[in-house]
Amino acid sequence: MENEVLNDLLAHNNMKIIQRKDMFNFSLDTVLLSHFCSITKNTKSIIDFGTNNAAIPLLLSRRTNAHITGIEIQKDAVDVANKNVEMNNLEDQISIVHCNLKDYIVNDERADLIVCNPPFFKVGEKSILNESEYLQIARHEIEVNLEEIILAASKSMHYHAKFAIVHRPERTIDIINYMQKYGIVPKRLKFVYPKFDRDANTVLIEGIYKGNDGLKVEKPLYAHDENGDYSLEVRRMFGENV
Amino acid sequence: MENEVLNDLLAHNNMKIIQRKDMFNFSLDTVLLSHFCSITKNTKSIIDFGTNNAAIPLLLSRRTNAHITGIEIQKDAVDVANKNVEMNNLEDQISIVHCNLKDYIVNDERADLIVCNPPFFKVGEKSILNESEYLQIARHEIEVNLEEIILAASKSMHYHAKFAIVHRPERTIDIINYMQKYGIVPKRLKFVYPKFDRDANTVLIEGIYKGNDGLKVEKPLYAHDENGDYSLEVRRMFGENV
Repeated sequence: MENEVLNDLLAHNNMKIIQRKDMFNFSLDTVLLSHFCSITKNTKSIIDFGTNNAAIPLLLSRRTNAHITGIEIQKDAVDVANKNVEMNNLEDQISIVHCNLKDYIVNDERADLIVCNPPFFKVGEKSILNESEYLQIARHEIEVNLEEIILAASKSMHYHAKFAIVHRPERTIDIINYMQKYGIVPKRLKFVYPKFDRDANTVLIEGIYKGNDGLKVEKPLYAHDENGDYSLEVRRMFGENV
Repeated sequence: MENEVLNDLLAHNNMKIIQRKDMFNFSLDTVLLSHFCSITKNTKSIIDFGTNNAAIPLLLSRRTNAHITGIEIQKDAVDVANKNVEMNNLEDQISIVHCNLKDYIVNDERADLIVCNPPFFKVGEKSILNESEYLQIARHEIEVNLEEIILAASKSMHYHAKFAIVHRPERTIDIINYMQKYGIVPKRLKFVYPKFDRDANTVLIEGIYKGNDGLKVEKPLYAHDENGDYSLEVRRMFGENV
């Protein structure tokens, strides 16, 4: 289809993804969150809020056999997501649901893990003049904002289920506040730095619904090395054998 | 006096400190906080909550000409603190006040900066069997707890004054919650890691009273190098020319 391209989602790992040039494409944040979130053998059910072309469900399928539901508000993104699930023969593991995550109602069972790579920008925070409507919705809090995401997560989680989100460090306090407001206790915090000697530009946070207090701040991750290339740690996340 | 020893507070910098073997001795946290807190030319008045032997006021006197008040509840620590101020000829810059910081009342003017290296342990969290009463009070929330410290700080701060604290990462959420409860907006966050590939063991947080939102997460600090020695960055904080 016009605008569609076929990309490697994971190098050397036989996982491909169809992306549309005019829509949100998976990024380092997608990969970071997919590696950061806690998955155990007791994780049976996962929801990805705002799955777009299903990059996160595809990546998570390499870590678990749990069922993964991707929620996506944009119909055209749902179509791409479904193509990606089929192309990778993951129809039995991954379901895509077309709705606003604010309206998502868990039918039978709540999730053990909810992940979200949300829109980063507040409405009006950043110009949208050069963005397609697809990108505007994926990148700006137009259809859903941070508080609504965390509220929706809390309604769809098992007791002691986990919620993991990636965002900009400036929003760390908001995320912590909203998580606590809706019963999700922050347990793991990890900051990503573009390279040595720079402030963090990404935060990863995971909380447990109705969990106990006690935060761990994990070792930093550096995205790039001194030459500006992706660091070894990041290249391994992308599936390279380095 | 019995139990007293004379230590270098800063190497190569002609700053000495008297410490008592049975009391709290300055530590890496003392030095980290003294370097982390923001001091500008507009910083005219600083308070150190729980100053003990005045290590933080002594260190801060190398960064600023602002007046520094050290608050200390333990009379014997106040005596040592006063000796240290005199020995370093800093009577004009540093005042030591003997009271529980909960009861401290700002007389004439509020501070531009309040710093605190508080007791880290909740009462009952860690055995105090082998600790002197001096150490128990310095290390456990016996006389004052985290919320009381932050409440007291908020009462002694100018509009847009800064509050900086060092603590264990597990208490990060509590600190952020109490700061917000009492009008101090978290603005700078820095984690200290014992070495590469380890979780953080120390957090440094600074907030601004009635400030605007917007958090910066600063580059990580590693306390030790691969050989287990203090890192170059830390050795420089201790005054070494490395």
